[in-house]
Amino acid sequence: MTLKFIVDLEPIGRRIEIEEGATLLDAAHKAGIDLVAACGGVGICGTCVVHPRSGKFSPLTQNEEDTLLPEQISAGFRLACQVRPLSDVKVEIPPESLVSSQQMQVEGKEDVIRLIPNVIGIDIQMEKPDIDDLRSDLTRTNQTLAKMQFPPLNSDLNGLARLSKMLRKENWTIRLAISPNEHQSRLVTSLPKKTRLLGMASDMGSTKLAVYLVDLESGATLAQTGVMNPQISYGEDVVSRIAFANKNEENRKLLQSRLVQTLNHTLETLCQQVGVSIDQVVDAVVVGNTAMHHFFCGLPVEQLGEAPYVPSVSEALSISAHEIGLALAGGAAVYLPPNIAGYVGGDHTSVLLATQTYSTPKTMVMVDIGTNTEISIVHKGNVYSCSTASGPAFEGAHIRDGMRASEGAIESVTIQGSEVQPKTIGNVKPIGICGTGILKGISEMLNNRIIDERGVLDKQHPRVRTIDRGSEFLLVEAKDTGHGRDIVITRRDVNEIQLAKGAIRAGIEILMREAGVTADQVDEWIIAGAFGTYLDLNSALRIGMFPNVPLDRFRQVGNAAGVGAKQMLLSKEKREEAKEVVKGINYIELTTYPGFTKTYTDAMYFNFV
Amino acid sequence: MTLKFIVDLEPIGRRIEIEEGATLLDAAHKAGIDLVAACGGVGICGTCVVHPRSGKFSPLTQNEEDTLLPEQISAGFRLACQVRPLSDVKVEIPPESLVSSQQMQVEGKEDVIRLIPNVIGIDIQMEKPDIDDLRSDLTRTNQTLAKMQFPPLNSDLNGLARLSKMLRKENWTIRLAISPNEHQSRLVTSLPKKTRLLGMASDMGSTKLAVYLVDLESGATLAQTGVMNPQISYGEDVVSRIAFANKNEENRKLLQSRLVQTLNHTLETLCQQVGVSIDQVVDAVVVGNTAMHHFFCGLPVEQLGEAPYVPSVSEALSISAHEIGLALAGGAAVYLPPNIAGYVGGDHTSVLLATQTYSTPKTMVMVDIGTNTEISIVHKGNVYSCSTASGPAFEGAHIRDGMRASEGAIESVTIQGSEVQPKTIGNVKPIGICGTGILKGISEMLNNRIIDERGVLDKQHPRVRTIDRGSEFLLVEAKDTGHGRDIVITRRDVNEIQLAKGAIRAGIEILMREAGVTADQVDEWIIAGAFGTYLDLNSALRIGMFPNVPLDRFRQVGNAAGVGAKQMLLSKEKREEAKEVVKGINYIELTTYPGFTKTYTDAMYFNFV
Repeated sequence: MTLKFIVDLEPIGRRIEIEEGATLLDAAHKAGIDLVAACGGVGICGTCVVHPRSGKFSPLTQNEEDTLLPEQISAGFRLACQVRPLSDVKVEIPPESLVSSQQMQVEGKEDVIRLIPNVIGIDIQMEKPDIDDLRSDLTRTNQTLAKMQFPPLNSDLNGLARLSKMLRKENWTIRLAISPNEHQSRLVTSLPKKTRLLGMASDMGSTKLAVYLVDLESGATLAQTGVMNPQISYGEDVVSRIAFANKNEENRKLLQSRLVQTLNHTLETLCQQVGVSIDQVVDAVVVGNTAMHHFFCGLPVEQLGEAPYVPSVSEALSISAHEIGLALAGGAAVYLPPNIAGYVGGDHTSVLLATQTYSTPKTMVMVDIGTNTEISIVHKGNVYSCSTASGPAFEGAHIRDGMRASEGAIESVTIQGSEVQPKTIGNVKPIGICGTGILKGISEMLNNRIIDERGVLDKQHPRVRTIDRGSEFLLVEAKDTGHGRDIVITRRDVNEIQLAKGAIRAGIEILMREAGVTADQVDEWIIAGAFGTYLDLNSALRIGMFPNVPLDRFRQVGNAAGVGAKQMLLSKEKREEAKEVVKGINYIELTTYPGFTKTYTDAMYFNFV
Repeated sequence: MTLKFIVDLEPIGRRIEIEEGATLLDAAHKAGIDLVAACGGVGICGTCVVHPRSGKFSPLTQNEEDTLLPEQISAGFRLACQVRPLSDVKVEIPPESLVSSQQMQVEGKEDVIRLIPNVIGIDIQMEKPDIDDLRSDLTRTNQTLAKMQFPPLNSDLNGLARLSKMLRKENWTIRLAISPNEHQSRLVTSLPKKTRLLGMASDMGSTKLAVYLVDLESGATLAQTGVMNPQISYGEDVVSRIAFANKNEENRKLLQSRLVQTLNHTLETLCQQVGVSIDQVVDAVVVGNTAMHHFFCGLPVEQLGEAPYVPSVSEALSISAHEIGLALAGGAAVYLPPNIAGYVGGDHTSVLLATQTYSTPKTMVMVDIGTNTEISIVHKGNVYSCSTASGPAFEGAHIRDGMRASEGAIESVTIQGSEVQPKTIGNVKPIGICGTGILKGISEMLNNRIIDERGVLDKQHPRVRTIDRGSEFLLVEAKDTGHGRDIVITRRDVNEIQLAKGAIRAGIEILMREAGVTADQVDEWIIAGAFGTYLDLNSALRIGMFPNVPLDRFRQVGNAAGVGAKQMLLSKEKREEAKEVVKGINYIELTTYPGFTKTYTDAMYFNFV
C-alpha cells in the first residue's frame, strides 16, 4: 500500500499529489516549479528554502541543521530537498527560492484532475514476417492491436512510413502513440518501447506566450516558460495586427509563421531543459483570443476587423500540427477549444473551465486581464461575457518609463509627502516601472493628493514639474537609478492607466447591468491573467478598477487560461466540458451597447462608484 | 419523357448512355474518346467518320452526302457529328478517326455503373451575419447543412479559410464539395454555386501513367491521356528503382516528387483541354503495383527489396492529396485500393474489380501484361494470384530496334520466304519495331522456320546474317526505312521475348497447378493491360505465351486497371467491393515456389506445351 498526500504550493497556487517518501523538492519538480537547487538536491547548498504552513513533516535533518541559519530554523524554514510530508500539507515557496523566471506568470491555480489524455502509449510486440506470414506491416500491427481490443490505425503517410521503419529498427517491439476512438485509433507516432509521452500546452496572449511541457502519464508539468509574442513587431494589439494582416496575404502568413516559429523554438528549449526529444511531444492544446486563434490557424481575419466581428470558426478544432508547421511528433494534433465570439476566444473558455465559474450556483465575476480583457459574470446559472480593449499599459507599454516585470523594474512604491520609497524586482537600482508599480504609484499619488480624481497633477507638489507636453511626477532622481536618468510618472501615463482601468470597469458595470446584479451581490471576484497574478488589489480598488467591495471576496488565480489548456491536454473529459462551457454564454458586444461610451468615460474617473 | 440509348463504341470497348437526340459525336465526347472533328462538329470536314454496326440511326443528312465519298456512303460510313442513334447501337470507330493518342492504351472495357461518388456538390444559401446573428461562418454553414440532413463539416484549415472567403465573395450562396459520412461531412472545397465536380483517376504503370479526368456527376470521361512514367530515368523496372530508392532518402523522395509532378502536369493539361479549373477536381483514385503505390505514398520500400517482400501497407488508403503534393482541390483525398502482396498491387485489385473475375462461378485466367505481369486464376470461387517479372520488352525496350507504339513503328509484319511486308503505325516508312510488331515478327519467323523452337536463327536463310554478337534477321533494308538504317531482329531480341513470354507462361502454369486445373478447363482467358489491348493473339499463341486453346476463349479488355480506378472514383460501392476482392486471394510467391526455375526455363521454348 502506498500513501499519497496532497501538497499545496503557495503563493503560486499549485496543487500536486505525491507518494509517501517524496520530498518537497520532488513535489515541486512534479508540479513543474523550478525551485533553485544548486547542489542538485543533496542538502548542502541551502538554496531550496521553503516555509511549511500546515500539515506534518519529517523532522529536521543534519544537513538542514548544518546549512540553514539559526534564525531560519527558528522561523520554521526547511530545505525542500530534505523534508518529506507526512500528511496533506501546505507549503509556501519564498520568491528567492524560485528561479528567475517566476515573474513570467505562467502558473495558475490548479486542481487535481482525472488523467484521460487524448493520446496514450501502447507497447506492442509482434512476430516478424517470414515466407509463411506475408502480412503487411500495417495489417500485422492492426491485428496485434485488435488482440488488445484497440480499433485499427488510421494515419497520415509519414506515420505509416515511420511505423515500418521503427518496427524493423526496434525488432518488432515498439510503443505506439495513439488516440483511440470508437472505430479507429489515430496513429500519432511510433517510438521505442516505454518511451514517455509528453504534451505541449500554450496560452497565446497578445503580448506573451506561455508554454508548458507536460508529462501525459503523470500529469506533471516538466518545464514551462513565458516568451514575448513575436507578432508585437507588427502591431501592439490584435486590432492593429488584424489591419496589418488584411493588407495582403503575405502579412497574414508572416504573423502565422512568426508565431509558430517562436512556439517551436520555445518547445525545443523546454525539451532540451528536461532532456527529452521533441518526438515525444505527441499532443498539444493551444488557447488564445479569437484573433490569436485565427492567426495561429491561418484563418482569415478580415471579418474580425469589421462589424459585426464574427469569427470564421467558433467550433472546437483539432488540427494537424504538421499542417501549420508546429514541430511536434509526426502525426500530432493540436486542440483548440471553442471560441465564444469575435473578441472572446478559447482562452476565456479555458479560464471559465479552469476556474469552474461557468457552473457555479454562486454569483461571480471573472476578469481575465490582458491587452484585451475578457470579463464574465455568472448569476443564477446564467453566464454573460464581454471583451474590452484595456491595452498594453499594464505590461508597461505606452508608459514613459514603463518596462515589463523584470529585474530593475519598480514593482511597488510608497509615497509619504515628498518622500518616495520604490521597491524593485531583484532589489537593484530602478531602471523603470512595471504594471504593478505604476498602479501602486498612482494609488499612492491619489492617497497623497498629488493627483485628483480626474488624474490632474497638483503643480504645487514639490516633486511635480511642468514639462513640454504637460506635467510629471518625479518618482526617482537620476542619481538613484540604474541608468542615471530620472524616472517619472507623467500626466499622460496617468491617462493611459485611466483608459485601461476605465475599459475594464465599464465592462464590469455593463455586465452587472445585463445580469441585474449589484457589486455587493457578487459572492466572489476572480482575477485571472498574467498581470492579475501580481496585481496589488488595494491599488486596483483605490483607482476604481473594480467596485469597492471587501478584499476577501477577491481571488487571484494566475494564468488560469494556461491551467485550463493543461487540463484539456490531460483530460478528454475537460475538452468535452469546454464545449459545454460555451453553450449557454450570453455574449455582450460592448462597441454597440447603448450607453457604453458614457459608462466608459465615467469609469475613467478614479472616484467612479 | 426522355428516351435513353446505350451506345457501344468499338473496338476500344466503351459503353455510354445517351439521351435521344444526341449525336454519336456527343456520345464519343461523353465517353471521353477524342474523335477527330476538325470543323467542330458542324458536318463539313468529314474527319469524324464512323461505322455503324447494329441498331437504328437517323437518316443521312445533306452534309453527309456532300462530305463523304460515294464509296464511303455505300460501305455504310457516317459522320459522327450528324448521325443520331434511334435505338441501342453498336458503332465502330476507325483508327483514323481517333486523335493520334489512340495507341496510348488508356481505354478499357467499361460497364455502366451506379454513380455514388465519394464527393458530392451541395449548393447552400444562408443569411449573412448581422449584429443580432453573430454565428461564426462554420456554425452558420453547419446549421444550414443540418437543415438539409447533412452532418457537420470537418475540414483542414485551408478548407475553413477558403469557406470564409468564398461565402463573402459569392454573397453567402456557394457550392460545397463534401464527402458525407455518418457523423461528419468532410469538406473538400468551396466553389461558386453549381460548379461541376470532377475527379482524377490514374493507373500508374511502371512504364506508363494513364490519367483520366472524369465528370463525377455524369460519369463521363472528359479527357484522358497516357504519359511516360518519369521514374524510368532512375531504373527501368521497379526492382532497380527500389534499389535506387534504398540508397538514400533523397533518392526515394526524388522518385515520389517526379511522379507527383508528372501527374500534376498531366492533370493540368487535361483540365486545359476541357476548359475546366483544377479547383474542380475534388477526388482521385490512383492504382499501381505495390512498388508504385509505395513510391507514390512515400512509404519505405526497403522491405519490398528483400525476401519475404512484404508491403508496408496493404490496406486501402485514403490520403490527403495535399500531403503528397498532388495539386487537386484544397482538401481532396486520394483513394488507393488495397494491395494484394509485395508484387501484386492495387492495380491488380482494380483489374479483378473491373473484369468482375474475382466473383465469377466460371474458371477464368486473367493476365494483366505490363513490365510486371500479374496473373490470377479463378476456379470454383477460389482466386490464386502471382506476379512475374516479364520486363519491358513488350514496350520495345531491350530490343535492338525497339520503340514504343507511335508513328513509324512496325506494328505488324508478314514474312513469306525471303519476302517481308511490314506495316507501320501511320503508314509511313518504318523507323523501328513496337511490341506487337516484334511478336508478330517472331511468330512469322517461326512459321517460316527462320528460327527454331529454341530461338536459334537459321544461318542459311538469305536475310539472316552473322554479326559480332551473334546473328540477326534483316527485317527492312536501310533504303526502305525512315531513318536510312537497317531494321533487324537479333538473336538477343528473340531471347528477350523468350524471357518475357516465358515468365508469363510459367506464372500461368504454376497457378493452374495450384488451382488444380488444366488449360482446357479454363472457360475464359482475359488479357488486360496496355500491351494486351493491341496484342495479336495468334502471334502470342504461336510463341507459346499462352497455352494452345481456341482463340474465342480470349477476351482483350484493354486497360482494365484504369477502368477499375474510374469505377472506384464514381462509386463508393466499388471501393467497398475492392476490399472484398482482396480478402480471399491466395497469393503465390513464385521466387520461392518449388520448381519455378525449371518451369520458367522450359516455358522459354516456343513449343512449350
